[in-house]
Amino acid sequence: MSASVQPKAAEGRFFEDFRLGQTIRHATPRTLTAGDATLYLALTGGRFAPQSAETFARAIGYPASPIDDLLAFHVVFGKTVSDVSLNAVANLGYADCRFSKPVFPGDTLSAVSQVIGLRENTNRQSGVVYVRSQGFNQRGETVIDYVRWVMVRKREVSAPAPEAVVPKLPEAVAVASLGAACPPIDRAAFDEELSGSPYRFEDYSAGERIDHVDGVTVEEAEHQTATRLYQNAAKVHFNQFSEGQGRFGRRLIYGGHVISLARALSFNGLANAFHIAAINGGRHVAPLFAGDTVFAWSEILETAALPHRDD
Amino acid sequence: MSASVQPKAAEGRFFEDFRLGQTIRHATPRTLTAGDATLYLALTGGRFAPQSAETFARAIGYPASPIDDLLAFHVVFGKTVSDVSLNAVANLGYADCRFSKPVFPGDTLSAVSQVIGLRENTNRQSGVVYVRSQGFNQRGETVIDYVRWVMVRKREVSAPAPEAVVPKLPEAVAVASLGAACPPIDRAAFDEELSGSPYRFEDYSAGERIDHVDGVTVEEAEHQTATRLYQNAAKVHFNQFSEGQGRFGRRLIYGGHVISLARALSFNGLANAFHIAAINGGRHVAPLFAGDTVFAWSEILETAALPHRDD
Amino acid sequence: MSASVQPKAAEGRFFEDFRLGQTIRHATPRTLTAGDATLYLALTGGRFAPQSAETFARAIGYPASPIDDLLAFHVVFGKTVSDVSLNAVANLGYADCRFSKPVFPGDTLSAVSQVIGLRENTNRQSGVVYVRSQGFNQRGETVIDYVRWVMVRKREVSAPAPEAVVPKLPEAVAVASLGAACPPIDRAAFDEELSGSPYRFEDYSAGERIDHVDGVTVEEAEHQTATRLYQNAAKVHFNQFSEGQGRFGRRLIYGGHVISLARALSFNGLANAFHIAAINGGRHVAPLFAGDTVFAWSEILETAALPHRDD
Repeated sequence: MSASVQPKAAEGRFFEDFRLGQTIRHATPRTLTAGDATLYLALTGGRFAPQSAETFARAIGYPASPIDDLLAFHVVFGKTVSDVSLNAVANLGYADCRFSKPVFPGDTLSAVSQVIGLRENTNRQSGVVYVRSQGFNQRGETVIDYVRWVMVRKREVSAPAPEAVVPKLPEAVAVASLGAACPPIDRAAFDEELSGSPYRFEDYSAGERIDHVDGVTVEEAEHQTATRLYQNAAKVHFNQFSEGQGRFGRRLIYGGHVISLARALSFNGLANAFHIAAINGGRHVAPLFAGDTVFAWSEILETAALPHRDD
Repeated sequence: MSASVQPKAAEGRFFEDFRLGQTIRHATPRTLTAGDATLYLALTGGRFAPQSAETFARAIGYPASPIDDLLAFHVVFGKTVSDVSLNAVANLGYADCRFSKPVFPGDTLSAVSQVIGLRENTNRQSGVVYVRSQGFNQRGETVIDYVRWVMVRKREVSAPAPEAVVPKLPEAVAVASLGAACPPIDRAAFDEELSGSPYRFEDYSAGERIDHVDGVTVEEAEHQTATRLYQNAAKVHFNQFSEGQGRFGRRLIYGGHVISLARALSFNGLANAFHIAAINGGRHVAPLFAGDTVFAWSEILETAALPHRDD
Repeated sequence: MSASVQPKAAEGRFFEDFRLGQTIRHATPRTLTAGDATLYLALTGGRFAPQSAETFARAIGYPASPIDDLLAFHVVFGKTVSDVSLNAVANLGYADCRFSKPVFPGDTLSAVSQVIGLRENTNRQSGVVYVRSQGFNQRGETVIDYVRWVMVRKREVSAPAPEAVVPKLPEAVAVASLGAACPPIDRAAFDEELSGSPYRFEDYSAGERIDHVDGVTVEEAEHQTATRLYQNAAKVHFNQFSEGQGRFGRRLIYGGHVISLARALSFNGLANAFHIAAINGGRHVAPLFAGDTVFAWSEILETAALPHRDD
């Protein structure tokens, strides 16, 4: 490095760079197209009918085939990485995630985050940052919002820390606040042979467990291509040279992509669960590496009908 | 697995689940877009001019760039897998395959199969299932139809078998029934520099053999991405954990994708053979694995002009 | 190979097949779509705002999101390979490359090359071929033009060589000839938070060096898919069977794709450098193989404002 190197290349925020209440508008708005829908399908294996076929989507009440909910989530999430988690030691969790508008090809997503909590760790080397992130479409409508918290390194151990504030998060998203991302569905037009399963909402009950049977082995080229599709530039996913010297000796697969693979596997058993209304909480309990095989099972914890809707 | 596991996740039909004359409407209709055309091109290496350029396609008489015939085939085939061959021991063959309507971006394909033959094997552990599968567009027009036969395991060896019925298949598709998927071509507008070859129909003669020179090495990430693009969920292509304990110790590459790679290689020597009218028969004579290199050669067995057409 | 093998499969031109002044119209015109933009983004990691978001592009003055300049370059370049460099020993350099019209989804690119120099090597086994290649859109407008020179094998060492002609190439593209591919930009509408950097033209000065920090490891499946996307059929990139016996024992990554990866990395530090007006010269100084990690740095050699423009 010569002395003339300028800091124009961002190194990302460290713990002491965040301030409670701070609002960050993230870079690179993104227009999602039919090309994104195709590539996401080919990288994850999705087979849900409304996302796969214009005819099916329109028959049940959508104006067009919607973009997969998790693709929209990953695109919004990806924008936040450079500003929030470039120096993250760990992604600790997600909560209170709502999908509040459907996303269609042609929509442009952008994202804003607000710092809602900060707590330095006792070793003073890092701290936990809580942000609420919102994804917007080109009309300024919120399409997704969620809270996540990450452990972020400090640039300098001696830097003073703000008073600890830990936000109170709901254990589950209120059912009454859901459903806005899914138009009223014409149940009679919902063709169960085409959708791949005769099982509907009332066929699932609390305590039921579904083994989705299939497994999928992930390759480096696949998760890297997916993570770039999401414009998520976290270096742990891409750089074998540096990761080879790091904690795992390997590139880490973006945890959100693993959720997408599990979601695609869940088609076999939950084929009619074509829309995600909310995610109450999520954690990445173990890292996944290329060559590993992902399996999925689902447990129905509770069922809840949307109020004011009978579809 | 707990006792509450429900059979909502399909395990696929076994030999004794098929009945002669049975009609199966397959799940997940699929709208093909420009995104699918791009990804298929990038995964196979296609360079045929009408499929690559709107301008070329329109100049010779198409209303738009058609979707590659084999992409449409794979998408139709992919839908049949969950219902027909999830428990297949082997894909034995294809025959009597006709392409009867061109497919364009925006078209939605769906598929129906009819069981036209059943024959239990003498060991009673499996049997051969013959199906005629048809692919339809959103107007209900048949775009592709073909027969395939697969060897399918029995769930229980003792299950009674139906009387053996083996359909009589034509050795070759009748030329008179072909051509409907290709509009009349304006030969004068067919630019041989842009298409990549000066050789036309009358330049090829029976007995001629063409070595297509090039070879392409296939990676796991490539065939997995392609097979998901086709929404073909056969587990042998994706799950190294289970296949590692299986017959080959490896994931098997979907044979149809190998045909697509060979077809793309055939551009070098058959650049003007831009449309497949029919496939008389096909067999996968040996498995292909990641790391293998595909080469292709063609032998002209016979030439036949389409009746009533001079283009 | 039987005796009836016909030479319909092209083996590519050897040095003695080129003639000074010769014009070659290349095969396979190509319509670029939103699908190409997506796949290119996912294979390279691009995050420049105008190419990512319709809304951003329109706000600053584009009629739509432009296709990435380097994607257009690779597609034009790819067409020239079968005719110019199939028997190349080495790609020696590029110069005088101008981007003179923006390319948008829906545009169809074709390419023509003219031989502007020939010089046999003293060992008589090969020679250097200089071509000026031009890429056109469907309206016949030049979108890209550049010179490249390649070392091409002779079919027969004894073949006579033409008189040596080496074209004089400019050291740098004249600034006055640039800018036509970029509409006048509305600086006030250029949102620096959304673009990802507050640094504009006037913030960069000669001598400044920017380390783009990040690195990306390239997989075989990724560069093969990208190179097929560009319809570049050079066998060194795809055929492990033959390359395994060759100079490097490995498939070689297309150098243009490496430039695209470096360009995408340069976003971190040059986020507002969203358009490439010209490439003064380029060389591939060392081969890159799968498993290698690409890093990038930029040195500002000189800055020059476009005449007649204040945006």
